[in-house]
Amino acid sequence: MPIETIAFDADDTLWHNENFFRITEEKFQALLAPYAPAERLGAQLLTIERRNLARYGYGVKGFTLSMIETALEVSDGQVPGHVIAKLLSEGRDLLGHPVEVLPGVEETLRTLARDYRLICITKGDLLHQEEKVAASGLGELFAAVHVVSEKTEATYASLIEAPERAVMVGNSMRSDILPALAAGLWAVHVPYALEWAHEAAPDPEDASRFHRVENVAALPQLLPSLG
Amino acid sequence: MPIETIAFDADDTLWHNENFFRITEEKFQALLAPYAPAERLGAQLLTIERRNLARYGYGVKGFTLSMIETALEVSDGQVPGHVIAKLLSEGRDLLGHPVEVLPGVEETLRTLARDYRLICITKGDLLHQEEKVAASGLGELFAAVHVVSEKTEATYASLIEAPERAVMVGNSMRSDILPALAAGLWAVHVPYALEWAHEAAPDPEDASRFHRVENVAALPQLLPSLG
Repeated sequence: MPIETIAFDADDTLWHNENFFRITEEKFQALLAPYAPAERLGAQLLTIERRNLARYGYGVKGFTLSMIETALEVSDGQVPGHVIAKLLSEGRDLLGHPVEVLPGVEETLRTLARDYRLICITKGDLLHQEEKVAASGLGELFAAVHVVSEKTEATYASLIEAPERAVMVGNSMRSDILPALAAGLWAVHVPYALEWAHEAAPDPEDASRFHRVENVAALPQLLPSLG
Repeated sequence: MPIETIAFDADDTLWHNENFFRITEEKFQALLAPYAPAERLGAQLLTIERRNLARYGYGVKGFTLSMIETALEVSDGQVPGHVIAKLLSEGRDLLGHPVEVLPGVEETLRTLARDYRLICITKGDLLHQEEKVAASGLGELFAAVHVVSEKTEATYASLIEAPERAVMVGNSMRSDILPALAAGLWAVHVPYALEWAHEAAPDPEDASRFHRVENVAALPQLLPSLG
């Protein structure tokens, strides 16, 4: 059966995201350099982010809170107030960063929208994700935009009525590819140059519904061969 | 035309919420007492919360970030690290606080679910609101649960297909009552003992589709008289 619905991840699939987090994390490491080397700061921040995920969920607000917690922990509470204030303002800047759509995305989505139903499935802070969709100029191309708190097999099962006629396109093996395959969808991995360690996962054992392309521009040619 | 759909706000309508924020704010005021009197701390926190709403949206994560920003501001950056760490942990405690369903809510919703389609429309941190619905034990009674970033006339218009057959029930004049009336719904105000200053608003000028009751338990008797 031919593909009817294409579900797109948003961050690092439609527009840049992880690189802005990395730039903020480099500033964090520079601010905290008196207390710990960059490598330890990065490892500790990741540990604390993961510990907080069950409470905070994904997104910039939780990331900002975890940066502050890490700063207090590595400095044994000695980090000065102006550094905490700077972390708060870096977090707000990250929330307000302009959306930079990835090369080829807009033209490809406009082409695909003629023949397929496009939807967007993204996780993160609700307001921030909605704002990015609006700022991207791509919002009108989607029949629906779903901001979800986590991307599991159940998430895809609840959002996609006919999984055998749907394909999930995204950069995260852990959140976009493996759970979508488990829910019976097709999946196309479009790697981003940078990957948050939390989102990494090995390729699926059964690769019969799995593909990998370098750019979303390859989709119009690939999709008719699926299904 | 008779009412078919009842849309419920969640925080302070179905379960306690604002009182837990107040308890956290009292702890915040005690921690910052060396720097400013409680009244000034409360006023400054509200100012900063409102200034941050456009970036953070609603919810506990933004509230925690605003408490930290206020602490730094009123202490001129001198607040010690252990106080910031305590504010972080108070925020996490607020996110993990058990859900306490309000008196009469569960029985009333079970009664109403026999004759009406119930939905839930709530704003706040996405993951936290989902968790509270699940923890409340009320989730199965709702045909749909919508976590939204803001409650405007457009929000209600997009979620409610037949507004003249729907009623919004909530504690906030600003978020639940006035925009729902503007979208053509009926609206029933159920005041909560405490109100966040941001959510206050005067009664509507045209009260023809507006009612106020003391407890949701009054709904089964009231609703047949609407429409």
